[in-house]
Amino acid sequence: MAEKEAPASAQAQGDGKLRKQIQFADQQFEFQRRPTKKGHRSLSRSISQSSTDSYSSAASYSDSSEDEMTPREKRCGEARVHEDFCVKNIGQSGFGRREVEIAQQEMPALMALRKRAQGDKPLAGATIVGCTHITAQSAVLIETLIALGAQCRWAACNIFSTQNEVAAALAAVGIPVFAWKGESEDDFWWCIDRCVCADGWQPNMILDDGGDLTHWMYRKHSEVFKKVKGIVEESVTGVHRLYQLSKAGKLCVPAMNVNDSVTKQKFDNLYSCRESILDGLKRTTDIMFGGKQVVVCGYGEVGKGCCAALKGLGAVICVTEVDPICALQACMDGCRVVKLNEVIRQVDIIISCTGNKNVVTREQLDRVKNGVIICNMGHSNTEIDVASLRAPDLTWERVRSQVDHVIWPDGKRVLLLAEGRLLNLSCSSVPSFVLSITATTQALALIELYNAPEGRYKQDVYLLPKKMDEYVASLHLPSFDAHLTELNEEQAKYLGINKNGPFKPNYYRY
Amino acid sequence: MAEKEAPASAQAQGDGKLRKQIQFADQQFEFQRRPTKKGHRSLSRSISQSSTDSYSSAASYSDSSEDEMTPREKRCGEARVHEDFCVKNIGQSGFGRREVEIAQQEMPALMALRKRAQGDKPLAGATIVGCTHITAQSAVLIETLIALGAQCRWAACNIFSTQNEVAAALAAVGIPVFAWKGESEDDFWWCIDRCVCADGWQPNMILDDGGDLTHWMYRKHSEVFKKVKGIVEESVTGVHRLYQLSKAGKLCVPAMNVNDSVTKQKFDNLYSCRESILDGLKRTTDIMFGGKQVVVCGYGEVGKGCCAALKGLGAVICVTEVDPICALQACMDGCRVVKLNEVIRQVDIIISCTGNKNVVTREQLDRVKNGVIICNMGHSNTEIDVASLRAPDLTWERVRSQVDHVIWPDGKRVLLLAEGRLLNLSCSSVPSFVLSITATTQALALIELYNAPEGRYKQDVYLLPKKMDEYVASLHLPSFDAHLTELNEEQAKYLGINKNGPFKPNYYRY
Amino acid sequence: MAEKEAPASAQAQGDGKLRKQIQFADQQFEFQRRPTKKGHRSLSRSISQSSTDSYSSAASYSDSSEDEMTPREKRCGEARVHEDFCVKNIGQSGFGRREVEIAQQEMPALMALRKRAQGDKPLAGATIVGCTHITAQSAVLIETLIALGAQCRWAACNIFSTQNEVAAALAAVGIPVFAWKGESEDDFWWCIDRCVCADGWQPNMILDDGGDLTHWMYRKHSEVFKKVKGIVEESVTGVHRLYQLSKAGKLCVPAMNVNDSVTKQKFDNLYSCRESILDGLKRTTDIMFGGKQVVVCGYGEVGKGCCAALKGLGAVICVTEVDPICALQACMDGCRVVKLNEVIRQVDIIISCTGNKNVVTREQLDRVKNGVIICNMGHSNTEIDVASLRAPDLTWERVRSQVDHVIWPDGKRVLLLAEGRLLNLSCSSVPSFVLSITATTQALALIELYNAPEGRYKQDVYLLPKKMDEYVASLHLPSFDAHLTELNEEQAKYLGINKNGPFKPNYYRY
Amino acid sequence: MAEKEAPASAQAQGDGKLRKQIQFADQQFEFQRRPTKKGHRSLSRSISQSSTDSYSSAASYSDSSEDEMTPREKRCGEARVHEDFCVKNIGQSGFGRREVEIAQQEMPALMALRKRAQGDKPLAGATIVGCTHITAQSAVLIETLIALGAQCRWAACNIFSTQNEVAAALAAVGIPVFAWKGESEDDFWWCIDRCVCADGWQPNMILDDGGDLTHWMYRKHSEVFKKVKGIVEESVTGVHRLYQLSKAGKLCVPAMNVNDSVTKQKFDNLYSCRESILDGLKRTTDIMFGGKQVVVCGYGEVGKGCCAALKGLGAVICVTEVDPICALQACMDGCRVVKLNEVIRQVDIIISCTGNKNVVTREQLDRVKNGVIICNMGHSNTEIDVASLRAPDLTWERVRSQVDHVIWPDGKRVLLLAEGRLLNLSCSSVPSFVLSITATTQALALIELYNAPEGRYKQDVYLLPKKMDEYVASLHLPSFDAHLTELNEEQAKYLGINKNGPFKPNYYRY
Repeated sequence: MAEKEAPASAQAQGDGKLRKQIQFADQQFEFQRRPTKKGHRSLSRSISQSSTDSYSSAASYSDSSEDEMTPREKRCGEARVHEDFCVKNIGQSGFGRREVEIAQQEMPALMALRKRAQGDKPLAGATIVGCTHITAQSAVLIETLIALGAQCRWAACNIFSTQNEVAAALAAVGIPVFAWKGESEDDFWWCIDRCVCADGWQPNMILDDGGDLTHWMYRKHSEVFKKVKGIVEESVTGVHRLYQLSKAGKLCVPAMNVNDSVTKQKFDNLYSCRESILDGLKRTTDIMFGGKQVVVCGYGEVGKGCCAALKGLGAVICVTEVDPICALQACMDGCRVVKLNEVIRQVDIIISCTGNKNVVTREQLDRVKNGVIICNMGHSNTEIDVASLRAPDLTWERVRSQVDHVIWPDGKRVLLLAEGRLLNLSCSSVPSFVLSITATTQALALIELYNAPEGRYKQDVYLLPKKMDEYVASLHLPSFDAHLTELNEEQAKYLGINKNGPFKPNYYRY
Repeated sequence: MAEKEAPASAQAQGDGKLRKQIQFADQQFEFQRRPTKKGHRSLSRSISQSSTDSYSSAASYSDSSEDEMTPREKRCGEARVHEDFCVKNIGQSGFGRREVEIAQQEMPALMALRKRAQGDKPLAGATIVGCTHITAQSAVLIETLIALGAQCRWAACNIFSTQNEVAAALAAVGIPVFAWKGESEDDFWWCIDRCVCADGWQPNMILDDGGDLTHWMYRKHSEVFKKVKGIVEESVTGVHRLYQLSKAGKLCVPAMNVNDSVTKQKFDNLYSCRESILDGLKRTTDIMFGGKQVVVCGYGEVGKGCCAALKGLGAVICVTEVDPICALQACMDGCRVVKLNEVIRQVDIIISCTGNKNVVTREQLDRVKNGVIICNMGHSNTEIDVASLRAPDLTWERVRSQVDHVIWPDGKRVLLLAEGRLLNLSCSSVPSFVLSITATTQALALIELYNAPEGRYKQDVYLLPKKMDEYVASLHLPSFDAHLTELNEEQAKYLGINKNGPFKPNYYRY
Repeated sequence: MAEKEAPASAQAQGDGKLRKQIQFADQQFEFQRRPTKKGHRSLSRSISQSSTDSYSSAASYSDSSEDEMTPREKRCGEARVHEDFCVKNIGQSGFGRREVEIAQQEMPALMALRKRAQGDKPLAGATIVGCTHITAQSAVLIETLIALGAQCRWAACNIFSTQNEVAAALAAVGIPVFAWKGESEDDFWWCIDRCVCADGWQPNMILDDGGDLTHWMYRKHSEVFKKVKGIVEESVTGVHRLYQLSKAGKLCVPAMNVNDSVTKQKFDNLYSCRESILDGLKRTTDIMFGGKQVVVCGYGEVGKGCCAALKGLGAVICVTEVDPICALQACMDGCRVVKLNEVIRQVDIIISCTGNKNVVTREQLDRVKNGVIICNMGHSNTEIDVASLRAPDLTWERVRSQVDHVIWPDGKRVLLLAEGRLLNLSCSSVPSFVLSITATTQALALIELYNAPEGRYKQDVYLLPKKMDEYVASLHLPSFDAHLTELNEEQAKYLGINKNGPFKPNYYRY
Repeated sequence: MAEKEAPASAQAQGDGKLRKQIQFADQQFEFQRRPTKKGHRSLSRSISQSSTDSYSSAASYSDSSEDEMTPREKRCGEARVHEDFCVKNIGQSGFGRREVEIAQQEMPALMALRKRAQGDKPLAGATIVGCTHITAQSAVLIETLIALGAQCRWAACNIFSTQNEVAAALAAVGIPVFAWKGESEDDFWWCIDRCVCADGWQPNMILDDGGDLTHWMYRKHSEVFKKVKGIVEESVTGVHRLYQLSKAGKLCVPAMNVNDSVTKQKFDNLYSCRESILDGLKRTTDIMFGGKQVVVCGYGEVGKGCCAALKGLGAVICVTEVDPICALQACMDGCRVVKLNEVIRQVDIIISCTGNKNVVTREQLDRVKNGVIICNMGHSNTEIDVASLRAPDLTWERVRSQVDHVIWPDGKRVLLLAEGRLLNLSCSSVPSFVLSITATTQALALIELYNAPEGRYKQDVYLLPKKMDEYVASLHLPSFDAHLTELNEEQAKYLGINKNGPFKPNYYRY
């Protein structure tokens, strides 16, 4: 699903997944997770700040009312210190279980994996330590891994994103999970540590989202780390950190980059955003889309998805682009390509999907009309120059959850959504089906790494083999009652490919 | 524009550009261009057979009525032997000139190149021998090359595709062109030879489409060939032949593969087919699309384009696919994914876009309903098993140009378009704008190769640099009144890219 | 906006606004509004039952926690008996005012009316008694009427739909409003009575939604009623009741049917549903639409809107229809037309938009697959035979607000939304812009009736003059920055119309 | 299909079917059909001038090479004077028969009528004189009428539109047809007269398109006319003339206006134009639609159809409108609504669909950019002020059939299609399926009028009963494999309608 903060790269991806320069070095590894008591993010954070952004309020069921004691304190202070989990309230497991069951219905590939692979238990013997968002969807993944034979211990990759009820549901069936919504920085590392270290536990596989678990093990438990057989990493950030380790010659474990698989990329960006842009705008503003003038900044996959959805409901779309190829695609798709300044006075909605910074500036917002809606579907929270709006001449008024009116001295109001953070993570739900693609890819990557013959994978970062990418897709086809055609021998020979795939060369663009 | 016959490959491209096993070896080089008097293709042809298919009847203005003498005979037999051209009828040049002028309006990038580069004449000194389809659009290219400083001699790459009026128009302004519609095999090579060899002429650049010119020079005029500075090749076939030469260590000249540039690929397939499928079906059958049940075999770029267009007019679409990733895309785009046999009895139209062979078989056609329309948008003429329809129990009736009724014993009629050859080449026009993309790419590749500093290009096959790909796109934006946004320094730095591009990594999928 | 219960008619409207046989006679006039304490509807209700259905949970901000005393009790029992309003909590007026201000931004025509008509106060002297849903949007209407010169007293037309904060905001600025969420039957009539009768108050205009106010005045305050100058009625139900009164020769006041104006019809049905179907499904189920198989029952305006929206996001649509003309339209729009039974086993979502009853039956639901979603966008709560699901063999589980899992003995779950009531009213918001159309029409109808010269309107029911319909539309165009073209004299003469409209004959279909 | 010239009306229809003031009076009845030998239209024509416009070049198979003698002369001058037909060349009947057979496949309703009604021959005894375009589609109609029991005699309603081969095919099977392409004015009336008067022939039904036959009989053969049982008229013009006769008290025969039936209206305008706009533009200009800026003047059904089609292929659409309701629809459908002058300098294509005159003026065309395409999809040939382009300062150059370059002094070229006449009639084909709707309506109207009990129809003009309108639609559903749902008794009762229809009130807008 959502990318965490994008790392540095000489090559930008351009569709909201661009990379930012990060200095990574061991001595600089100070991971500052110090939200204040009120949950505000520390502005001094140097990396992974988006990991605190990226929770979906829409998917958060429980009230975040503050207890006196944290789950960790309660566990320590009581007779419960021997419990092999730490969650907010084990009593919420019933509700959590129901959410897991609902999620299962939209994650058909994992359920199919459970069925198909149950016989031979391809993960028998695997001891997996995981660090991801703790949601109903990841619960389906974790329980699938266990069904495939693995043992698991799990922590959250984000201090805010844990669905407490789901964590409770996992704990209730005996899975060692250490996570709750609103962890402190210290809690965060404590939870991870509980997952890495336990009596009689030597993890041999890592499933990570953002790289925090990997680096904690690398730095704090290097002996344990060296015995790991493989790492599966999902996020742009985590992948970047792995490549840096590898480049520095310090990656002693094979790692699989599942972020760049085709199915994940297309679903995360084009298809997922096609749905979430409407949902996010509607839930926050109740706006009617018909006839609205919208400018979409960036026509990568995210921008393409946004435009497709909005056009379907009768919006009039303009696009801004820096890349002439994407600009030409926008033209051919019926969008006018403009500079933001040309249309800034007329537009009703501004959606930023560039992956770039300061795409929407104070100077431009000075010229928008009253009531314009501004939101970010791109990356991180840098696209809209929100800082420039926190100025003495402007008044902020919180009108609904995730909706601020920024009020100009003349009374003009600009509706800023999610304070410029990612709209789809903050204000819409992400369909389980989209998450299913990613989770399945993770499961297959674990199976592949765990079962690969000696020597297939060295101490490097690998892309998911194309054939497995195709396999992930094929596992999702039955949900659509879709029936694949099979090549006959003659046809496969004519095409010069194996009749079971892979069907396309690596450079194929889809 | 249109690909010529696709060569062999271990990796199929799957979107109608698949490759077929070809044995290429010098001793086997028997290029059999022997159309009968009636224009039927010799079935014994081993290569480039599609070069005789790939002319657009829609773009052919003149009647193909047979003269007594060929243009070559006339030229030889008369006092005109010293004319440095050989065309059908120089008197048609007025009409041809008008067509060239019409084409210019839709080829803005070439016209812009003429303007921008006219000052410094980047092709001054270049002596280009070319072998392409001779159409209004290639005339615009040729005259652009000349405007950029080059000298040119030109032949046709296909014995049927020459627009005689356009050839006349070129000859009329003094360009040595040797081409007419309906050349014999022998004429074909004679024309090429006239372009290669002339008094005081040493070609230093080759622009080829299909590789025939290149190989003629390689085999027959190796001394001339060795002095060539660069080859620009457009077609799948020609590119394949270059890679084979290179692999065999026999390519003594740097070559540029313009076939695989992004802009060309996207325009040739997705956007061009989106328009031509409707045009091709309408011109041949006058069918109403609304509510028609259509099965599109293959959901690569070509299939995606066909589906998009047909959905826009209210057709109900099913898709067949062998590749689960493309199948999943079809699902997400609202197409049911089926096996052909599941829907064969209900569909009104079958469109094959796979690049595969025998996708639509006699057995299946036995089960279609009366009046079904069958056509090929994919590759070559192998997709529909037309041979199986030339059976004693079936009657063929030519009802219109390019439309045959194949009649079953029970009276059922199947409408076969273009005898199973490519519908878009046979029955629709290709917009000049699409051809403009390719032609501009060719021109830029020539400029790059001709001006590259010593050592930049070795005796190998190169892809167009990504930045030039972006430049081709940018030259086409003004037609759409599209305005690119420019990165500022800070943003470029944030993205880690040069503010003038390239903007995306090579693996970016667009 | 939403229609209340549809009345009887020999002619059905077919787009979800069908009419049901109602016996209306004075002696039968027993309006039974007796929700139990728990808010369940009395099944014995004979009319206007939908008035208790049709509140939007999405638009309800305040918690419905039960106080000890009702607002009416509080007002009576305290020193506040002389307050000329009765609302839940006047302290909430600040929040309500902000919602009103937000709504104003999307109701440009009313704001324009305020500006344009403020000079001459066309409603000066008008004393309007109103009975509508009490929402931010109706507050904008009420305050517009006052700005135009009218005095107003207002009650709610529905015991559940009042937004308490908005009622408070109106009261806070001195408007006599009597309404709160969760009125009892008795409260309901008491509130209406407070609006009709007050010291020194003789209402001369009625604005009604559903006809309850009109009939209360007709029966209980006939002397007051006779002095009324005009009635404006919005709902299908209310209009029907007026026609019945008229037919019975008992309508002593001119009435305007604003329900059947073009703009209202098109916006309420096609455009509004196009947006709300996605919103309603997303908020309740978080489902991904891409590739989902959906059957839409009924292809009237509502069905057309639903299909358009869902197709835009990649759903595969089937339609059921009884009317061959609408069925043919569905075909031409690319939807397969089927009987529900043909697809019942495959579909993922069933949306009923027929206005008919028992369109989706228990027998059919016995055959759907696990996880299917069922909802009603049509009319009333009769479309889905929900009663048949309240059977001993089925288990109901409330999984979220407005979402029930109905569980079959074999474990199969059907997701029933809003218990079969209208999805768009229960689970999505209605954009203010859509409501603006209706509200503007109401305001104009009041102005017309109030200012019409003696004799223009008799004691009958009238449609809004076409020219005013066009005027409503024209007032909404500036929001879209749309610029109308004006006919010149010559053109108007050629067309045989007035250059200022009306532009179309009454039978024009749009 | 195509309307002939629109008559006067106080109420314009606004979608390209507007009416023009016509003085109709017996003494003024001078029908001037005097095309010159070269086929140019006489400019002095006062009425029905569009009847000479409205032939489809696309549907014209035969060469219009001029013979020495006209068919009429040949027939008269030879021993063939006793032949009861007069066509160009009876030898072409084979080709014509094949075209008729092709048309049959797309006219399923007529073929169904033949089957269903063959048993009881509902037209047994009917003697029908017809005057329509003579095309493959009308041949299917005529032969259906005969299959239903009627005797027929037929003439052409247009001097240019006859497909000679089809006329030959009809004559060859013994149907008295008098029509050829390129009739003179005198021939035209002679042909009609041959159909009205023949030995032993008293026509009792009239099928007319434009009213010429009706008025010829009314004026020249009033005794024959009085014995006619009914008239079925298709065109706007003919219907208008009937209403005028009726108003003048001179219509002594019941007449059926089939022009205003729902199915015909929707198919003729929305759906038919949706397909023909693309076809017409492509065949004439080969233009690429993607990214083109198009202004569509008029957003009635025709404009809606054009916009839908063009948007589907990636064009950027603006709309001009005079009617605020249609303008609001355009907004909601995602089109910007502008004045033509605002966009005149940028647009690539101008399409006029207003039914109005001088919508595109010389002054505006002075400001368009080079290469702009101008065409008319609306009505008659008045929309574009073509006369103003026939000015001394402008040069016309015919570049292709139906395509003129109008060249400004500075070299700017404007591409004018079909000289401003209707693009869909001149440059595209009309699908048989669309014509099938109209033809079926005509056949049913004949059956109804012929079989109606005494007194059902008086000497007036009637609309097709709604139930028959629905029947026409239902006869076309099987082509789409569409399955209607049937109401059960309970549902029909609930809706207050007959379970077999009609299903909607007359004012329903669809």
